[in-house]
Amino acid sequence: MNQFRGQHILSVSQFDPDSIAEIFAVADRMRPYAHRLKRTKVLDGAILGNLFFEASTRTRVSFGTAFNLLGGEVRETAGMATSALSKGESLYDTARVLSSYSDIVAMRHPDAGSVAEFAEGSRVPVINGGDGANEHPTQALLDLYTISKELQFHGHSIDGMHIAMIGDLKHGRTVHSLSKLLSLYKNIRFTLISPKELAMPDSILELIAAAGHSFKVTEQLEGSMDADICYQTRIQEERFESQLEANKYRGRFRLNQDIYTRHFQSKTVIMHPLPRDSRADANELDNDLNLNPNLAIFRQVDNGVLIRMALFALTLGVEEIVEKYDCDVQWYSSKQNL
Amino acid sequence: MNQFRGQHILSVSQFDPDSIAEIFAVADRMRPYAHRLKRTKVLDGAILGNLFFEASTRTRVSFGTAFNLLGGEVRETAGMATSALSKGESLYDTARVLSSYSDIVAMRHPDAGSVAEFAEGSRVPVINGGDGANEHPTQALLDLYTISKELQFHGHSIDGMHIAMIGDLKHGRTVHSLSKLLSLYKNIRFTLISPKELAMPDSILELIAAAGHSFKVTEQLEGSMDADICYQTRIQEERFESQLEANKYRGRFRLNQDIYTRHFQSKTVIMHPLPRDSRADANELDNDLNLNPNLAIFRQVDNGVLIRMALFALTLGVEEIVEKYDCDVQWYSSKQNL
Amino acid sequence: MNQFRGQHILSVSQFDPDSIAEIFAVADRMRPYAHRLKRTKVLDGAILGNLFFEASTRTRVSFGTAFNLLGGEVRETAGMATSALSKGESLYDTARVLSSYSDIVAMRHPDAGSVAEFAEGSRVPVINGGDGANEHPTQALLDLYTISKELQFHGHSIDGMHIAMIGDLKHGRTVHSLSKLLSLYKNIRFTLISPKELAMPDSILELIAAAGHSFKVTEQLEGSMDADICYQTRIQEERFESQLEANKYRGRFRLNQDIYTRHFQSKTVIMHPLPRDSRADANELDNDLNLNPNLAIFRQVDNGVLIRMALFALTLGVEEIVEKYDCDVQWYSSKQNL
Repeated sequence: MNQFRGQHILSVSQFDPDSIAEIFAVADRMRPYAHRLKRTKVLDGAILGNLFFEASTRTRVSFGTAFNLLGGEVRETAGMATSALSKGESLYDTARVLSSYSDIVAMRHPDAGSVAEFAEGSRVPVINGGDGANEHPTQALLDLYTISKELQFHGHSIDGMHIAMIGDLKHGRTVHSLSKLLSLYKNIRFTLISPKELAMPDSILELIAAAGHSFKVTEQLEGSMDADICYQTRIQEERFESQLEANKYRGRFRLNQDIYTRHFQSKTVIMHPLPRDSRADANELDNDLNLNPNLAIFRQVDNGVLIRMALFALTLGVEEIVEKYDCDVQWYSSKQNL
Repeated sequence: MNQFRGQHILSVSQFDPDSIAEIFAVADRMRPYAHRLKRTKVLDGAILGNLFFEASTRTRVSFGTAFNLLGGEVRETAGMATSALSKGESLYDTARVLSSYSDIVAMRHPDAGSVAEFAEGSRVPVINGGDGANEHPTQALLDLYTISKELQFHGHSIDGMHIAMIGDLKHGRTVHSLSKLLSLYKNIRFTLISPKELAMPDSILELIAAAGHSFKVTEQLEGSMDADICYQTRIQEERFESQLEANKYRGRFRLNQDIYTRHFQSKTVIMHPLPRDSRADANELDNDLNLNPNLAIFRQVDNGVLIRMALFALTLGVEEIVEKYDCDVQWYSSKQNL
Repeated sequence: MNQFRGQHILSVSQFDPDSIAEIFAVADRMRPYAHRLKRTKVLDGAILGNLFFEASTRTRVSFGTAFNLLGGEVRETAGMATSALSKGESLYDTARVLSSYSDIVAMRHPDAGSVAEFAEGSRVPVINGGDGANEHPTQALLDLYTISKELQFHGHSIDGMHIAMIGDLKHGRTVHSLSKLLSLYKNIRFTLISPKELAMPDSILELIAAAGHSFKVTEQLEGSMDADICYQTRIQEERFESQLEANKYRGRFRLNQDIYTRHFQSKTVIMHPLPRDSRADANELDNDLNLNPNLAIFRQVDNGVLIRMALFALTLGVEEIVEKYDCDVQWYSSKQNL
């Protein structure tokens, strides 16, 4: 019996390299289903409660699709207004009630800690789909899985890699979580590039150092780096006190093919948690990078489905029998050529 | 052929003890499916039109889950803004159009009478999921089903029971409907506790009396009662003329373990239509009651799924063949231990 | 291999009489499934991304139902607010991301051209569910299919027919698209009835004339017409500069049974893209026409499901094998008597 069976997935602090390896191994086995080369019905009849108390189309649909690809059904809600929370109901009650309608819950909520609080009242496993500035563990896992796959393609492994993180490292939940996960591995080099006001918090730096990794803090791209991964982030305008404050940093860390060529080696993989701001004054990742084969941002999206499928299979205890419920795919899919 | 096949479920006035017994018998048979001990596909390919023109996450998801548990698919809408009603379309037209997309409709609407009006234009059976202050028959049935099950546990039956109803008995649609259903049985004792301004309407009192039951009207909890059921209600703030008017009654009928012990016998079952207001100044049912085994509020939720499954099975005429389409459940579910 | 396999459906300009005949032939074969006489699972495991960035309950549910009736699953989004577009993401990125979650996309968006732009970034076929004032090809196809079926019932064909179009012919996307499709056939007579300010655009008139059809432009219903089809439209108030401007035309082109009898032959079929405005001062199609067997507006709705099923089957390349995945329908459906 796998260690995740019947468990909540709330925080990256739950994981160690062994359990991550287990998740990634299951994710690997999900690929033919995501590519529509095969079809499984292992979760036929199971119901996902896809509870998004904060809007997030892509994360919501990614969870729903992952569950459908395993054969399950999805019941969902999007937005706070439709919730009884506004009538003074406690999160415990909401959890007791809504969890009674499904076999597993994926949940997003604007308040830090709310998903863990919900999990205490829930009768079924809860997967955190993001709780404010706090945690978004499936994003961290899909980022790490992508890094692992991209490095593997170049014949490398996570141990010993060099990652450059760029942009708003203060408010970026994804870079915090990813740094925590990377700290579980060995001899990572971090180059952390941001204006002073948006620097990586000391708590993360201490964690990186305590785990024996090295880091360099700098305010701008300099010279040529031998980074394996360049992880660019979004200026999270909604986390600033005002739009004016946020605007100060818009466009400060643009990346385009020209800048990439000057500062990175030709095999450096470019990542971003998406959405990327494509407006002319922001332009976090210029569209001319779309032709760069090392732009991994859409592979991150695909890997998100695999990771979520893996977590569903593991928490519902079917990871060993997925293939037993295989059936044919009879329709045309362009995904079969991916 | 059962009497509900192809029929609308619009009002509690449709039911008599025989038809209620029929619904409850089918609901009993739904329990192993709701507990994920078995899986049926009797409605495989059928489509529920889950039309919520007024937001109600839990009722909407409960209907959807009930349909999924019978093997069917759900298409749904939530909220008035997305509706063509705002372009001057008649409810008849809306019904003709939207009912053409499904095999059965579950509908909530803020206006009293609207669901019945919709049903006239509908090509498929319509189940009322609440039409304003008017009717919410599945809530009334799940309340009565819960009472029946709880009494059965204590070796009693609905006939001859004593129920205390507390709180806003004037605006509380649920207590009105439940009173009507209870009036169909024999020798019920009602204790109706509310401030004068929120007293049970005379029409309901007359109906109770005409059916040969006894009732006592009082303004507060007094002495010790031998009630079998204590049915607490929410102060429905949205039905008052102003928030100020509503605030006058906030917290007037709190119930906690201490008050419970003073006024009720140790086996009195506590019910509430949910959501309960857990804010400190309201506190309709204190959280310390969560440890009281007679707190049936979450069993009401579970029973709601069974009742809705039963109504779907009956209206779509498959209640005799549900088990014929059984298949295995292969995933882990904590519900199997309930 | 059919010509639509793996293709986008974006505009009526994609079609010619042969390809339309192919779609209609597949639509004909969908009827027993829509009537619940049979059930197919040919798309079992396929996922529709039903992306409605502009609210449209009926079109959204029609697409979803059509996909369910072929055995597929639906993941969907409704409304712009829940989209990352508001964070400055390009439509290309949105398309790359959201298309990775499904096998096919049906999409509505308020901006003209946006669906085609989305399609360029999409990894899967995209069906245009309406992009502002621009295109709504499934509506045009279901209108033409309805005309074809109604004429067939009366022993006629599209070639040589006489159609009267009434109301706001300037802003009416549906009459523009329908006119384009009809122009592909032979010897059509158009009678175009509208106030001068809301007349059919010259570009459409030129297209009609260039294709060898005849048309007559007039400002009001006159005398008795031998029209086969009377296509009434809605005054699209949202397309006017102000409500005041729109109000000038409200109720100018009412149709009721009395007016129908005076101006049309007894077999003239009445159509409308719905919703019809039933408010007393608008009354595009009076409810007394509901008893007229030639009122085809609800048959248009039914045909919409058939057309959308046909397009899904064709784009996903399963149109030849739909019946191979047939299974029984075990539930009661009033649709079996349609």
